[in-house]
Amino acid sequence: MNEAISFHSGLADDAAALLEKLRGARPRVHCITNAAAQVFTANLLLAAGGIPSLSFAAEEVRFFTRRSAALLVNLGTLDAERRSGIPLAIEAAQDARIPIVLDPVFVEASPPRLAMACNLLRHRPNVLRCNASEFSALQNADDPKRDVTQFAAASHCTIALTGPVDCVTDGARIVSIANGHKLMSQTTAMGCAGTALIAAFCAMTEDSLIAAASALLVLGIAGEQAGRAANGPGSFVPAFLDCLAALNADDISAYARIEP
Amino acid sequence: MNEAISFHSGLADDAAALLEKLRGARPRVHCITNAAAQVFTANLLLAAGGIPSLSFAAEEVRFFTRRSAALLVNLGTLDAERRSGIPLAIEAAQDARIPIVLDPVFVEASPPRLAMACNLLRHRPNVLRCNASEFSALQNADDPKRDVTQFAAASHCTIALTGPVDCVTDGARIVSIANGHKLMSQTTAMGCAGTALIAAFCAMTEDSLIAAASALLVLGIAGEQAGRAANGPGSFVPAFLDCLAALNADDISAYARIEP
Amino acid sequence: MNEAISFHSGLADDAAALLEKLRGARPRVHCITNAAAQVFTANLLLAAGGIPSLSFAAEEVRFFTRRSAALLVNLGTLDAERRSGIPLAIEAAQDARIPIVLDPVFVEASPPRLAMACNLLRHRPNVLRCNASEFSALQNADDPKRDVTQFAAASHCTIALTGPVDCVTDGARIVSIANGHKLMSQTTAMGCAGTALIAAFCAMTEDSLIAAASALLVLGIAGEQAGRAANGPGSFVPAFLDCLAALNADDISAYARIEP
Repeated sequence: MNEAISFHSGLADDAAALLEKLRGARPRVHCITNAAAQVFTANLLLAAGGIPSLSFAAEEVRFFTRRSAALLVNLGTLDAERRSGIPLAIEAAQDARIPIVLDPVFVEASPPRLAMACNLLRHRPNVLRCNASEFSALQNADDPKRDVTQFAAASHCTIALTGPVDCVTDGARIVSIANGHKLMSQTTAMGCAGTALIAAFCAMTEDSLIAAASALLVLGIAGEQAGRAANGPGSFVPAFLDCLAALNADDISAYARIEP
Repeated sequence: MNEAISFHSGLADDAAALLEKLRGARPRVHCITNAAAQVFTANLLLAAGGIPSLSFAAEEVRFFTRRSAALLVNLGTLDAERRSGIPLAIEAAQDARIPIVLDPVFVEASPPRLAMACNLLRHRPNVLRCNASEFSALQNADDPKRDVTQFAAASHCTIALTGPVDCVTDGARIVSIANGHKLMSQTTAMGCAGTALIAAFCAMTEDSLIAAASALLVLGIAGEQAGRAANGPGSFVPAFLDCLAALNADDISAYARIEP
Repeated sequence: MNEAISFHSGLADDAAALLEKLRGARPRVHCITNAAAQVFTANLLLAAGGIPSLSFAAEEVRFFTRRSAALLVNLGTLDAERRSGIPLAIEAAQDARIPIVLDPVFVEASPPRLAMACNLLRHRPNVLRCNASEFSALQNADDPKRDVTQFAAASHCTIALTGPVDCVTDGARIVSIANGHKLMSQTTAMGCAGTALIAAFCAMTEDSLIAAASALLVLGIAGEQAGRAANGPGSFVPAFLDCLAALNADDISAYARIEP
């Protein structure tokens, strides 16, 4: 990662401004996402200020994509209907010039899914959000010698590599975010739903690095606040949505842990 | 709406009596509904006293419909399997003479979905539940000069037009309900799940107007109570189900805001 | 049930030991389950210490099954894609010698589903989890004169027959568990998600009777604790996951109600 410039100055302010803009603009985000993530993704977008739609059937997905401000493509529970709808949605998003965010869930577990993810990367999504196992599978399918920064530069795509510390890079700039709470990993689809917020933020700025890093910062801080309020993984979910809906610029500024 | 007679006398009592009857009868409600609504719809029906089932595959949907006391058809996430199952379920419901309630979600966003909704209306569902955008799309596809009352009369169908104030009409009678809470619109599938309660109430009375208006009254009052208990859109969901399960005749009588 | 030996000595200790082992081992449990159960099943497994996956498309299901420590097959919302994926998953599980747990949801309501369940029983799942209506349908399709113990012996399968009192038998041994709370039956997919915990416990011991009875004991005690904390069926769900995540050996020992 030596060539990328560490970026963090002003990110908390950027995140607060984008969240405020999102709440005013109420962008539609069309989400092709997996069966475990649909409800939580929709509720997370509503709590943040966006308007979700979820259809993926080939017959309809272009209509929903065209009227949206961003497209999320999540590869979980990849059945025949999702497989046929995803390319149509990508094409519609490119025609409409709206940002595309890709979440290659469990791509390390399924060779056909990995092949599809590699193919989708060639369509240059604005952001690729993945965890370490997923990134490793994509890296090995591409060029194992490329690190995350080089992979981002070669793919012309911002990569949001999430984990205990999130790392976001567009190949030229890099930023790390240390916010978050351990209960986030005990909530199914937290990562998936978070990627939908990245998509919503991409609808608010053309700078994909700022969009992705801002969304992860907002999610991490809301997660920490919810972690303090929750009694366990069950009460964490409603608390997280409450905290996200109530998050303000002061919270973001006070709690952001952005690392060089 | 000038020709319809304003109707409200006794609606709170009707709603309380129907809710009590529902809790005793525990009717099965078969719900073909969208992927974001399935869990919440099932939990809402259970909280109200009904028994949900959710299958929609062509091979099975007739068996589930026939043994039920009402059928909900929601057009969200309308994939090939739902498309082929819906006509079979409608046919089975008509054979079994059970009420049918139609929810044409996002019909304004997708021309093939709009065509399907218009076709289903010809099968005369007992109730059509929609919001203003959805109604507008249906109205434009039919006869833009007809208002909601005229549309209901011409379709031989009760229309429950939901929004900040809900309006229910069967073409001859009309009633408005002002109950509800703003967090209801920040909860995905709240409208969809509410339509399942209309279906359950239709199983308790042959008067579709009373059924639809009673269900919306119950939902609105439970929503207000939950709104007072909740900290945001996350905690609103469990609070809403708790309030719905605990709602009694005194609450309905005390809080009903029925308008002429 | 006269020939089976009542078994209960030490079950609370077994359950506590298996839960502790599960939290350390973090087994992957691949769950082919219905649309209403996917999210809650995944969150229940995460709260208990397991790692869920949910794909069922024919193209992918073998990959997910092979890398897992147990397979859950739930027949709810049985669409074409689930129908084609289930036999491939069963085959992969048998090749990988991992336990299989079958949940024939609503098998009494749909003849094609009943036929599929009877066929799957011939593949000798380690555990069959069902309620009284489902068992009755399976029994009538097989030999109505066989009681649950005889059915278990003839099927070479542990049967977990759940209800107000759960009964678990492998044909030779039998144990009854009286724990549980009435709000569990007002939560959609509680039974379905509980079967996933049986699958996770089957990954921790080769004794299917101990696995199934331990899982039901853990679920019942967590349910009782959540029932005391909850205000109704809505707040019961997060409370249940919180209680399950926090459950310890002392709770299990203190509250187990195991009957001969």
